[in-house]
This record gives sequence, structure tokens and C-alpha cells, in this order.
Amino acid sequence: MSNSTQTFATIITIGDELLMGQVIDTNSAYIAKQLNNIGITLKRRVAIGDDEQEILKALETEKLDASIIIMTGGLGPTADDITKPVLCKYFNGSLITHQPTLDHITNLFANVLKRPMIDRNIKQADIPNVCTVLENKVGTAPGMLFEKDDVMFFSLPGVPYEMKWLMENKVIPLIAEKKTNTFIEHRTLITNGVGESFIAEMLVDFEQQLPSNIKLAYLPNYGLVRLRLTGYGNHQENLTSSIHQQFHQLKSLVKDIMLVDEDITLEALIGKLLKERKQTLATAESCTGGYISHLITSIAGSSEYYEGSVISYSYAAKEKVLSVEKNILEKYGAVSEQTVSLMAKNVLELLNTDYAIAVSGIMGPGGRTADKPIGTVWMAVASKHKLITKIFRFRFDRKKNIELTAINALILLRELIVDKG
Amino acid sequence: MSNSTQTFATIITIGDELLMGQVIDTNSAYIAKQLNNIGITLKRRVAIGDDEQEILKALETEKLDASIIIMTGGLGPTADDITKPVLCKYFNGSLITHQPTLDHITNLFANVLKRPMIDRNIKQADIPNVCTVLENKVGTAPGMLFEKDDVMFFSLPGVPYEMKWLMENKVIPLIAEKKTNTFIEHRTLITNGVGESFIAEMLVDFEQQLPSNIKLAYLPNYGLVRLRLTGYGNHQENLTSSIHQQFHQLKSLVKDIMLVDEDITLEALIGKLLKERKQTLATAESCTGGYISHLITSIAGSSEYYEGSVISYSYAAKEKVLSVEKNILEKYGAVSEQTVSLMAKNVLELLNTDYAIAVSGIMGPGGRTADKPIGTVWMAVASKHKLITKIFRFRFDRKKNIELTAINALILLRELIVDKG
Repeated sequence: MSNSTQTFATIITIGDELLMGQVIDTNSAYIAKQLNNIGITLKRRVAIGDDEQEILKALETEKLDASIIIMTGGLGPTADDITKPVLCKYFNGSLITHQPTLDHITNLFANVLKRPMIDRNIKQADIPNVCTVLENKVGTAPGMLFEKDDVMFFSLPGVPYEMKWLMENKVIPLIAEKKTNTFIEHRTLITNGVGESFIAEMLVDFEQQLPSNIKLAYLPNYGLVRLRLTGYGNHQENLTSSIHQQFHQLKSLVKDIMLVDEDITLEALIGKLLKERKQTLATAESCTGGYISHLITSIAGSSEYYEGSVISYSYAAKEKVLSVEKNILEKYGAVSEQTVSLMAKNVLELLNTDYAIAVSGIMGPGGRTADKPIGTVWMAVASKHKLITKIFRFRFDRKKNIELTAINALILLRELIVDKG
Repeated sequence: MSNSTQTFATIITIGDELLMGQVIDTNSAYIAKQLNNIGITLKRRVAIGDDEQEILKALETEKLDASIIIMTGGLGPTADDITKPVLCKYFNGSLITHQPTLDHITNLFANVLKRPMIDRNIKQADIPNVCTVLENKVGTAPGMLFEKDDVMFFSLPGVPYEMKWLMENKVIPLIAEKKTNTFIEHRTLITNGVGESFIAEMLVDFEQQLPSNIKLAYLPNYGLVRLRLTGYGNHQENLTSSIHQQFHQLKSLVKDIMLVDEDITLEALIGKLLKERKQTLATAESCTGGYISHLITSIAGSSEYYEGSVISYSYAAKEKVLSVEKNILEKYGAVSEQTVSLMAKNVLELLNTDYAIAVSGIMGPGGRTADKPIGTVWMAVASKHKLITKIFRFRFDRKKNIELTAINALILLRELIVDKG
């Protein structure tokens, strides 16, 4: 994967809360992806505390391996933030009031936040006099760019929304202008139903014939395995043609287990299929408690094809809203093929849709019965003409059982749609 | 925060996918929290690629600052994993078949996964002959413990479920036995309605009088600010008493803005309140598409107080399932005080609960109208005797608007419950 023409970056994330495990670092993955898109290779990610010595050491160390260093965090208004004074020390500057930033903060408090501004907010306009200020239109702390020994050091606020805005509008354009000469391209497909090691076995010969600038990665997650080809090169057209050819071959090798030949979520895939066909969907969820509906509606524009859901967490809700007869519930139980079949058919009719999903199961830790262990899930997908049911036995904790149920329900629905059910 | 009696750890996360931004690293936060609980201070977290030189360098560097090093990732069955050979090199060992691991994998494939086992799976039982094998009961790759120069090096699989099992059952007990002498205690409370800088201003004197072994941190997130006191000490009882006293004082200083004096999620808080009162809840969601219901049902035991939800994404669903009259929808629109009031009252009656939440809004990027910009949300919470409505105008992207709507709906419900509405 190493390549002499590559440009390397590293990320330094600053904040005691990261070392306490109180927050999950989602910023790094976002930044990595953005850099990747413009052909920058991320070499390393480091998370450190709000500590002068640690920050200075990280700057000195990372600079040895990268010509782009992106720092996030440590710029909030409260006392545990010490990043700016350390940056002054490292880059031989001092803090001065940056008038455009102060005007921006004053305006934000007066007209948007509608709260009085206090000293701490004003201090956010104090900026080292040795950096280029990157205006932050969506928050109070601006981004900063320092340059030293041909290395670009960016410092960004840790609030994900603000960091993202600055990356997209300031950092990426600046890097693209100064640093990129290598192209990176990815092609991803998603498989289902076969384990990572089995696929790897199928692809031994394919991997061996890959040119040295193209690499295959296996990304298993929740029973799906993503296969990603990554190519590097200095000539965009050659790279595109070469990776296109390899991807074509890869697809033909795994065609029997391939769900889709792009890197999208299952909920986006379902949305795409329904939109193309101008069809609609409803769901009836018991054990997943709204998670399937949440995934579907996380897609912008889902109101075009999604009518809604009945989350029937209790017997009463199943009877009253979904018209599942009491004697069915009593005879077979809420977690049964009979119950989910009725849930699917009835919600399809209730909301007058082309397709319906229904799930009912025992997610744990409580709720097991003699013949139904934790992780038992019945699901049904229905169209006007067809009903498919399936039982699963997941063996994980509540959270993962809910996620696996949702993913498998979407996979089952895809089968029904593609089958023209 | 530095303290000569502290024991330091660092985390090394291995995998190209982390540097591509294809996965979010949730393992590190979990490991950090577990270490913290037994008094180990995390010094740094590093993420690197599947690259021999990078792994060797990280081991050598991190060893200088920590006596516990936890590696995750790089142990999967496919070709891009090179961790074990590198560990052999670094610790002067060689790979040998570990019979108990091989027996475990064989049994797992035969009786649980019910798939044939192939060479790659068998290779997972190849273990460096210079480590202590940590049996992994929930997966194929075992954990490993290497010891060198009084430093404990743990290597764990990257699959979160397996990593967690090994941390809890193997790693933490081993560390607790050999390394702990410092105690750490946390106390957290959650505030709402006032910004971080304002709270910091209120607490200037409090922060100044804190003893040097107790530290206050501000953790703002989605309009809530968590205030966390962290204390370090060698004497458990003194530490507990000192932090208890400071927390008591902190609580009295912020009592007007405090939601709860422990570190729990809002959905867990709502669950606790409803359980205590033996009361029940239903929801009617439009714009959040099931996310509120998902949060509520993510709590184990929520079936005791949660009846279910109607996700009425379309006009038709609002009319048909929630009995919101067509003329109300046409006159005021789906996003209106009138509509959410009816949604709340009707779902309360439909599912016969003590409380109900209803939300309707425009989450973006589409859907704005002349008088209702993106981010406009109406919400209502109802009991049998009372109805509270509130309008919000969020100014973020779809995902964050959905999350903020859910959090504020739970806050509004808490007010109604605590108010004995």
C-alpha cells in the first residue's frame, strides 16, 4: 500500500473525555473519509488528554510522518481547554483578539442564540497571531491553520456539526489546493449469508492477480461482508479503468451472494428500490421497538414511500391497533409465525401499502420462556400477493439483537421486492 | 491531574479500515471506561493501519509511557491481518497451534455456526508461543497477554462483542490483580437549558476551592451539559467522602437547572420515573420516525411501562390510525399545535396509557413550507389531566434534528411526570 507519491496525514484528537470513555470519537472516522476522498492517506490517529506536554509531544511526533495534521477538540469555552495557549507556545505566537471572529460571536449571541454573551464567549475570539483564521459560520470557535516546515496543522472545534462544516468548507479545499497529487478510488460491494473466511477462500486467485496498486479489504459487520477494492495512482483515467475492470471481475465471482454493488446502507437500498418502483411500505414492530422505522426514516425523502408503523410493544397494542386476535396471541404467543404473519398482513391493509415488515421476538435480558430462548425472533414480509416468514435465533445482547433483527428484516424485504412479490 | 501513584495505560487500535474512515471506533471508549472504573488512567489512544512497521513502532512508543497496553483488531481470518506475525517478531516467539483454541473453534463451527471449517479458521488457533492465551468463549480468535519489562500487552479481537467479553472476563481481572493502587471515582449530574459557558461562570468559586485531586469537567451534548467530578486517591474511603461532599455542594449550586444527579440517559431516567410510579407511556411520532420509541425500548424491561407507538409518517396514517380529523390536517397542517395535541390525546386513549408524547416537524433537507422552515417541530406531552405543547426551531441536519427532537420530547415528558401532570 505504501507509495512514494502519497501524501500522509494524521489526526490528533484532544480532550480528557476521550480518555475517560465518556464519548465515542465519531470525528476521526469522518475526517479520515474526507481525506481519503481527495487522495490523502491517513497514517495514524492519536487521542490525548487536555495536557500541555501531551499536545506538544503529539505535534512533534506526528510531524515526522505527515505533512497534514488535523487536530480536533480543546477549543470549548470552559476552563479545561488549554489548546490555544499550547499552540501559541509551539508556533511562537501570542493570543490576540480577532475582530471578525468577535463580531461573528457577538452577532450569533444577539440574533441566533438570543442569550447574553459573557467573558468566556468573548475569549473564544482570542486567536494565536501566527495562524490563518478559518471562519466557522455554524459555531463560536473558529478553525485555525498553522504552517511550519511545509506541514499544514489544522485546529478545529470538537463539536461534530462544527467540525464537519469546517472540514467541508475550509479544510478540504485548502488541502486539495496545496497537497494532492495521488488519486484514490474505492469500489465496494455488499455480500450476505457467507462468512468472511469462506469468501476469502473463493477469492484467493483473484487477490493474487490484483495489480500492486489495488488492494482488497474484507469488512464484516452484522452478518454482511463488504468487499472493498482500493486503488492508488497518479493518473486518474488509468486508475479508474483498472479498478473498474477488477471490480467487474470481483462482482462476477461473488454474484450469488451479492446484495448490492455499491457502498450504501440497507435502508438506503430499500428506499432506492421502492422509489424506482413507485411502491410503498409500512412496518409493524414489536421487539425492535421502532428501530426499523428509524432506519427507514433516516433516509431523506423517505416520506415518498414510507407510510408509517405500528409499534405494538404490548399485547393490547397488537390486538387493538393491529387487530391480531386475542385467541391467536394466547394460543401461539406474541413471538410466533402466526402473530407476525397477521401483523404484516394487517398493517399492509391498515396503511394500504405495497409491502409490510413485521417482527416479534425476545431481545433480552428478560422475557425468555421455556421453548423460546432470548434471541428468538419471528419476522414476516408481505406484499399483496405473497408472505414470507422466517425465524432467527440471535445470541447477543439486547442492543445487538435489535440491530440484527432490523438488518435481517430489511434483507428479507429486499428479497421480496426483487422477487417482484 | 497527574499523580505519581497513577498507573497508565494506552490503547492501540489496528486496522486499515479505521484509517479509511469506514468504521467508527467504539471499542476505545468502552476500553477506556473499563480501565477508568478500576483506577487506571488512560494516557493516549492510537489507531494505526495493518502495517508491520507501524505496529512495531507503536508498541515501542507506547511502552515508554504506560505499563498496560491494550491492542484491538488485526486478528480476523482474512489476508489483510498481520498482527500475530508482528507480535511474534516483537516478543521473540513463533506461531504454534494452540490445541484448546483449536478444539474450541472446531466445536463452535460444528455446533453453533453449523458451517464447515476451512484452513483460515484453523489458522486462528495459531498462537505465539510466548503469550498467555485468554480464552474467547464468544468467538474464534482468542485474546493474548504478553509481558515484557514489567509492561502488560494485551491483544484482543476487534469485533466489539468479543472484545467486550474478553475485557470483562479476562483483561480487567488480570489488571486489577497486578496493577491497581490508585482509586478513581466519578460523580456526574445533568443540566438542561443553560449553556456551558454560563454554567462555568456560576461555578468559578466552586472550581477554585476544589482540592487538587478532584477535577470538574463540562460535557455538553445536544443542549444538555453533563458536569462530572473526577477524584483520584490512594485511600478509597477518604476519596469517597471528599468527592461526596463536593458533589453535594455542586448539586446545590446548580439545583435550578439540574435534570438528574446521576449519569444516565434520558430514556433510562424516564423508565425509572415510570417504573417508580407504576405508570405507562405511548408515543405518536411523525418526524422522528420511530427514534423516540427506539430510545425508550433500548432500555431492558421497558415493556413494563411502554405500550407502543404509532409512527404516522403520512397524512393517511395520522387520519386512519390516530384519528386526526382531515379538516384539522388541512386547516393547520401536519406540523401544527392542533395536530400534535390531537396525536398525543388520541394515542393516550388508543393505548390507554398514563402519558403520551407526540411530535411532528420538518427534519430536512426537503419539506419546508413558506411559513415553516426546516427544523420546525411541534411537540405535545399529555396525561389524562394535562397537555403541554411546545414549538422548536432546530437549525441542523436531518440526523441531528431528529436526535434533538427526541431528546427535547423526553425532557418535556419528564417535566410533566415530575409535575405530577
